[in-house]
Order: sequence, then structure tokens, then C-alpha cells
Amino acid sequence: MTRVRVESFTISLDGYGAGPDQDINNPLGVGGAELHQWLIPTRTIQRALFGKDGGTTAVDDDFAARGFQNVGAWILGRNMFSPIRGAWPDTSWQGWWGDSPPYHVPVFILTHHARAPIEMEGGTTFHFITGGIHEALAQARVAAAGKDVRIGGGAATIQQYLREGLIDELHIAISPILLGEGAALFAGLDLRARGYECVEFVPSEKATHVVLRRRA
Amino acid sequence: MTRVRVESFTISLDGYGAGPDQDINNPLGVGGAELHQWLIPTRTIQRALFGKDGGTTAVDDDFAARGFQNVGAWILGRNMFSPIRGAWPDTSWQGWWGDSPPYHVPVFILTHHARAPIEMEGGTTFHFITGGIHEALAQARVAAAGKDVRIGGGAATIQQYLREGLIDELHIAISPILLGEGAALFAGLDLRARGYECVEFVPSEKATHVVLRRRA
Repeated sequence: MTRVRVESFTISLDGYGAGPDQDINNPLGVGGAELHQWLIPTRTIQRALFGKDGGTTAVDDDFAARGFQNVGAWILGRNMFSPIRGAWPDTSWQGWWGDSPPYHVPVFILTHHARAPIEMEGGTTFHFITGGIHEALAQARVAAAGKDVRIGGGAATIQQYLREGLIDELHIAISPILLGEGAALFAGLDLRARGYECVEFVPSEKATHVVLRRRA
Repeated sequence: MTRVRVESFTISLDGYGAGPDQDINNPLGVGGAELHQWLIPTRTIQRALFGKDGGTTAVDDDFAARGFQNVGAWILGRNMFSPIRGAWPDTSWQGWWGDSPPYHVPVFILTHHARAPIEMEGGTTFHFITGGIHEALAQARVAAAGKDVRIGGGAATIQQYLREGLIDELHIAISPILLGEGAALFAGLDLRARGYECVEFVPSEKATHVVLRRRA
């Protein structure tokens, strides 16, 4: 059965999933790159993003790797795809990831501005969904064909899906930094009342990994 | 030189320092007792609160113990002393801790309602301060006589002192639970802009310990 999962979503000690003021040079907002000091050096991400061999193994890599396991489709908020706001000025922006993005499956991007799908190298196709989060999930489920759907983020997108009770499991990494402001993942969301509990709590030197799962 | 420290202050994964609806049976609010699963079993707390030998050692106890080291006075918010709201109905309430509270130094309690000091067994004296956080800190500094002042909490009290730039260092423990609502420690406070950084990040099986320090 398809599950809807959040994986490797990282927040600061003060609860922010990205820093403020995202732009082309700060895909995760100002200070946001520090968030992923546990993730970027892992073998999984070195291979997926940079095509490199090597990288850290152990706990951080275990979590990075499981984020890609059995994932048949992704959903991304618009800002995870692009620093552009409002209407698309042209079709030149094709994501942060170059010609061969690390997804290798269909990716559904939430946006208010329609755009034709983009077929990238390596099996990734970007689909732009203007019908809202339910439509995106419905299409992602079909595309996933029995595998899971991974909600990539950002915080606002995850919050929308949590509010609708649509996420089965979240792996959250807490990084040892303060961001001070930005997108607060847990703000205004009572996950306890929504039936979630912490089922894994695994530290590494660079992050604390927690898995939240909704009671069946 | 006297430093102003927060020690062993525990928050949930979603950032709350206590659960909602504090009352006589729930000193830390509903669900709040789960927060301190790392702390209560430690040798330090078993001895301090229950007069018992034994208890856990290692990381959790190291942090519990350092919270009492070189502390010459404490400051507590009213709700850390009492479930009573508004005026004191009488003088019968003398804290949550029985005849011999675990402080053994002067304790300054922030309240809007004046009350005579209470001298307890073992060196603890409760002083009730109606003049606000600055007055409490001034009196605590004098009482500490060169040792440090520990701000016990709760979250609202810590926030007030942080806003005034009066806290040098905070040890925060993050517990693997969700509270869902309650007193959010970091809400609306940009600690990064206020010059704090994470200088220690030490996991245990039961909590992630972080130390935040203001850059000099």
C-alpha cells in the first residue's frame, strides 16, 4: 500500500525548516545550508547529487538512503523547485539540480501557475499541479504505482498535508544550529492530537533523527 | 563573575517546555511529565528530589549535575512554584517539593502578588518578587554572591529574560515526545540575531542536549 512519507526534512533547534529570504544563492534561505551538514556529506547524497563515490556512512547515511527507498513519486512545494515567485517568466528554469535531477521518478510541483511538464534526464519528470494538494497527491499516487509518495517540502507544504491528515510518517532531522526565523514546521500544528508519536529517536554527531508516525 | 544560566530546561520535539492545563496533578501541564524521562532517573535528581542513592549516570546525569554546580540563587516563574493563579488565598502552599526543596540557596519567585519569604529546610528560602524580572535578577545576583544565577523556567520566564538580553547560557534538552501545544520556548524569539549559537550538541538515548551561548 502506498504510504505518504516525509524524509530527511531538517529543522533547526528553534524549529525552522529553512531560513528567511530564499533566493538563487540561498535555496534554503539565509543560513539554511547549515541545516544539512549531516546530509550533504553522506554517501547517498554525494552519489545522488554530485555523482561522486565516497561519503559518510553510518546513521546519517542510513537515514538519507531510506529516504529514497521505495519512493515512486515526489511532491514539492513551488519554492523547493525554484526561487521564482509569481508567473513563470519563461521555461528556462528547470530546477536547482541540473540536467539529471536526483529524483528519477515523477515529481509533482505545487504551483498557482500552469506550465508544461519537463522531462529531464534519468527518469525525472516535473509536473506542475495547479489544482492543490489533493490533486497533486492523487496524481502522485497513480504515478507511484504502489510505491510510496515522498513529500519533499518545504515546511509550508508539509504543514498543508499534515493539516489534511495525509502524511503517514515523517523523518525529521534536528540540526545543531539556530536559524532565528523562517518557516516553522510545527507552528500551530498539534501533532499529538492528530495521532502522531515519536517511534524512533536516533542521534548522530551532526543531527538528531526522529521518526514520527501516525497511530493506525 | 556571575553568569545567568538556564539548565536542564526540557522541550518537546515540537518545541514546548510544558504541556497545557497545569494543575496540582500536572505540575508540567498535561503530558509534561514525559518531558523529563531523561532527567528524573539521574543520580543527581534521585538524590536531590527523593533523597535516594542510585540512579543513572553518564550523559544525562552529567547535565543534571552541572545544573546545580556553582549556582548561588535561582529565579522561578510563579507557575514553577505553584498551580495557584491570582492572589495567594493563604500561606499554605510552599512549593511542589515538600519541606526540604532541592535548591538549598535563595530562590526568587516572580509574581504579581506579594508574600512574605518562606524559609525552608536545607537552606532554601523562597522570596516573592513583585517588581519584575530586573528586580528579581538584581536580588538574585546579590544573593548569589559571585556564584551564578539559574533561571529555572518556565518558558515564559526564560523568554522574558532572553528578550532583555540577560541570559548568558542555556542548556536545553530535547525529549523524543510531541506535546502538541503548550508554552513554546523559541516562538517569536530570534536567538540567532541575539547572538546565540549552539556550542554543545550531545545526544543520549533519552534526549538531545544542546548548549546555547551568547557570543561575547
